[in-house]
Amino acid sequence: MSKRILIIGGVAGGASVAARARRIDEDAEIIMFEKGPHVSFSNCALPFHLSGMVENGDDLVLMCPEQFKKQYKIEARVNSEVVKIKREEKKIVVKNVLTGEESEESYDKLVLSPGANPILPRSIEGITGSNVFTVRNVVDIKKLKSYIDENKIEDIAVVGGGFIGVEVAENLRLAGKNVSLVEALDQIMNPFDYDMAQILHKEMMDQGVNLILSDGVKKINEDSIELQSGKKVAAKAVVMAIGVSPETGLAKDCGLEIGVTGAIKVDHNYLTNDKDIYAVGDAIEVYNRLTQKPSRLALAGPAQRQARAAADNMYGIHHNNNGVIGSSVVQIFDLNAASTGLNEKTAKAAGISYDFVYIIPGDKVGLMPESNPMHFKLIYEYPTGRILGAQAIGKGNVDKRIDVIATMITMGGTLEDLKELELCYAPLFGTAKDIVNHAALVALNLLYGKFKQVPVTKVRELVESDAFIIDVREEHEFAAGHLKNAVNIPLSQFRGRLDEIPKDRPVYLHCRSSQRSYNAVMALQNMGYDNVINISGSYLGISCYEYYQDQVTGREKIVTEYNFK
Amino acid sequence: MSKRILIIGGVAGGASVAARARRIDEDAEIIMFEKGPHVSFSNCALPFHLSGMVENGDDLVLMCPEQFKKQYKIEARVNSEVVKIKREEKKIVVKNVLTGEESEESYDKLVLSPGANPILPRSIEGITGSNVFTVRNVVDIKKLKSYIDENKIEDIAVVGGGFIGVEVAENLRLAGKNVSLVEALDQIMNPFDYDMAQILHKEMMDQGVNLILSDGVKKINEDSIELQSGKKVAAKAVVMAIGVSPETGLAKDCGLEIGVTGAIKVDHNYLTNDKDIYAVGDAIEVYNRLTQKPSRLALAGPAQRQARAAADNMYGIHHNNNGVIGSSVVQIFDLNAASTGLNEKTAKAAGISYDFVYIIPGDKVGLMPESNPMHFKLIYEYPTGRILGAQAIGKGNVDKRIDVIATMITMGGTLEDLKELELCYAPLFGTAKDIVNHAALVALNLLYGKFKQVPVTKVRELVESDAFIIDVREEHEFAAGHLKNAVNIPLSQFRGRLDEIPKDRPVYLHCRSSQRSYNAVMALQNMGYDNVINISGSYLGISCYEYYQDQVTGREKIVTEYNFK
Repeated sequence: MSKRILIIGGVAGGASVAARARRIDEDAEIIMFEKGPHVSFSNCALPFHLSGMVENGDDLVLMCPEQFKKQYKIEARVNSEVVKIKREEKKIVVKNVLTGEESEESYDKLVLSPGANPILPRSIEGITGSNVFTVRNVVDIKKLKSYIDENKIEDIAVVGGGFIGVEVAENLRLAGKNVSLVEALDQIMNPFDYDMAQILHKEMMDQGVNLILSDGVKKINEDSIELQSGKKVAAKAVVMAIGVSPETGLAKDCGLEIGVTGAIKVDHNYLTNDKDIYAVGDAIEVYNRLTQKPSRLALAGPAQRQARAAADNMYGIHHNNNGVIGSSVVQIFDLNAASTGLNEKTAKAAGISYDFVYIIPGDKVGLMPESNPMHFKLIYEYPTGRILGAQAIGKGNVDKRIDVIATMITMGGTLEDLKELELCYAPLFGTAKDIVNHAALVALNLLYGKFKQVPVTKVRELVESDAFIIDVREEHEFAAGHLKNAVNIPLSQFRGRLDEIPKDRPVYLHCRSSQRSYNAVMALQNMGYDNVINISGSYLGISCYEYYQDQVTGREKIVTEYNFK
Repeated sequence: MSKRILIIGGVAGGASVAARARRIDEDAEIIMFEKGPHVSFSNCALPFHLSGMVENGDDLVLMCPEQFKKQYKIEARVNSEVVKIKREEKKIVVKNVLTGEESEESYDKLVLSPGANPILPRSIEGITGSNVFTVRNVVDIKKLKSYIDENKIEDIAVVGGGFIGVEVAENLRLAGKNVSLVEALDQIMNPFDYDMAQILHKEMMDQGVNLILSDGVKKINEDSIELQSGKKVAAKAVVMAIGVSPETGLAKDCGLEIGVTGAIKVDHNYLTNDKDIYAVGDAIEVYNRLTQKPSRLALAGPAQRQARAAADNMYGIHHNNNGVIGSSVVQIFDLNAASTGLNEKTAKAAGISYDFVYIIPGDKVGLMPESNPMHFKLIYEYPTGRILGAQAIGKGNVDKRIDVIATMITMGGTLEDLKELELCYAPLFGTAKDIVNHAALVALNLLYGKFKQVPVTKVRELVESDAFIIDVREEHEFAAGHLKNAVNIPLSQFRGRLDEIPKDRPVYLHCRSSQRSYNAVMALQNMGYDNVINISGSYLGISCYEYYQDQVTGREKIVTEYNFK
């Protein structure tokens, strides 16, 4: 007898389960139930409708129910909300959201792929207003876009600086709107550490987004929002994107187990505690292989893998469940920003012993057009050198470097492995010693105790405590902008001016990107100086780290002029 | 007493040894000897001077001897040819090429980094003419450029379709010249298999390069070249780039061991059979970790790693020697082409049991601007599934995918590992199921015997033998161009037209890129058809494979119209 597979939710996870099950089993009866009017839309592309990059909102819908029927013999019932799961009877109750009519459907296997809901705190006054929007599906984004267009709205506030908030803010800004982005934490884009996030903050500011950090929304008015700080921001439309919560209502109601993270708990096979009910996608709890703890991860790639694994398991096909590491990338105006694995924050929270390097090499050979600095931060386990994570930000191909690191993490690679990686090189694509090789070399020197360094986050303290800082760039570079109390001893004059370098106190060195200062550090050490310290990230890193904070606080600058190139 | 390190050759390898030795040892006396007038130039960027992308030829020189002296206390003696190594005395004889004067220098450690010489077969009549050029260094490229400019030359022949030949041809074409590219083999760019090379041939043709394959130069005249075939090609300047031979003269003269490949033989530490003489770079023989055989590899990345390892070894610092896999990338007009590890040819030659998949997915989400097909070929060991190599060609970020595969190869990854890789995704950067994941899934289906396929290279044979081929694309796609004897049964009508599909003979299926046909193949198999075969690469692959050969041979086409999108 043929299997009857019912699937709740028809977007990434649900549609993938359906398609995979069909390929395995031509006879199965496969039905997807979707609350909204669309199945299979491009979730991750929704924000691009706001800038017009995806001009026609309907293009976001990838397949209609008719196509599912004709091409894959899969029934996709839209406007069909599943309101109850009757586990004992192996039935679900489906409500037609247009007519209100309810009916029952029985299943052999049931798959939950309900996704996650945008969080809308009731404590915010005005949160239910018609000027408040969320971005979860095609209906949402079209509604937001037409509201803005029809009411000719110019001032818009986006609340929440995660992927969705940032992409919505960017696309609205690209459409010429006055956009305020409000984030409760002291940084946007949580996958990045605070130091790396400053580069993104600068870009937001440079592109004219009114970025407000460490502040939350208290009240939403018709033409403004009021923040916790008392600040008032002009906004005739508000997009709420402070986060999502897994849709667990149905699961809870029928007694399925919920995990410690508040998402649906599943086993190796993406089965819930009911042997006939699977769950996949943003509603489930996944296992983070780096922290070795349950976690949540709302990303399309893992959802697809889970979907395939669940369908396979229905038919006794083996699959591997490696847990997740979390890899993502986002374009923020002229910058690309990608990350994978652990960052400092998550490593600390998990109690994992780590160290890191932060380098800013060129993303291709300097002679080539559009060669730009790439900010690259590599996190590794101390003292083993096992690679734990990385973050990369720049105008160039950050995703390439992060994918290599993601691969290394998955394969259990160490710094020694990373150093030896033989990656493809041509002047238009990178450098002979690739950024990831370079990061491994610096990290190994640290790990093996060959030299010491301080991060850019400590430089202000060094300047304020009047530490001895040598800037080894050439004179014209120094003249164009430098740390206020740095001494300029260019690398080219270095060995002739040793008498200016004290032996009785710590000596900090930097250049533009730490390549020259590293050479100077090694030279000094070899000449018997035993307390020389490289400033990781050097002048580029210092400039990027200080800039945004200087602008918003108006505090005294530690540099005469910034340098970002 | 301080070490005296002499280095023969001051480009990639030599300069890297010098810089690394200096960082380890502040006291060492380090001298580089370079025959030509420049040390440390950007070898790989030379061809870009021809198009003007690097406008000023002098910019190709990265560091002058004065900078080496001032910044790194390294002596760089240009115009200094080492003519003899006196091993017993640990001395070299250096000739000043400007004055002819000879002098001796003694060493504690000697490093050979002489590189490789362009091959100029004496059998070619006219090879010594003043209109014949090679491209090895800054002097060469400036000479070629000014010869062309000063004589207002329009017709140029490039002989040899490897990296240098192709990049020179491209940059001359970009400068508006009439360029002929002559290659003795039946394909250009040897790192790619014949099927993949057709895509490059098409691009060359589309961009107006007169590409001549399977032919060689017999005679060079003042305004033409004559080929083995009797063909005559207009050319007032000829660039010879048929290959390089390692510069082993000095090594042979002093009795250093030469390997089976004709390059200098070195041990794990890049030591020759003389314990005080190292050799690195294009002149040495390396160990290919995949074929497990000695080989030659003239690439900048490996040269830098060898240089570092050699310097480290002088100071007792441990390093790993993992052998090489060979990763490279090149831009050919609007296409990027990258490869790593083994291809079919090298796997066959090494007697390694392999299989492969060839897929052509989109390089990013279809909705995004500039989404394009990427041709991706993955080679894996049969029956283990160990990853051996890959080739990628397309307008998008091919280097990203190849770097991931290079990383997998280095870490000993299998198809199962590759399938599970969690790479970063956003619609502008790729697809939720990345191309490399996709390739692994298809390969695993093959490896596990879930379905069968034939390569695009066999389609002509199928058409000519009147095999039963089903094109499952929709009717309008079929109408725009299709295989001459294919039957159009769109996936959307498929299950209703089973009576048209014979059970008593093999049934071949294809669509545009094999995604839909794969679904059809699985459906048919599940319905009891036991001889259905997918055409790998599908219509995109067939079009690309057939196009160039059709054009040059004028043979009968097997398609009504090509489709490349």
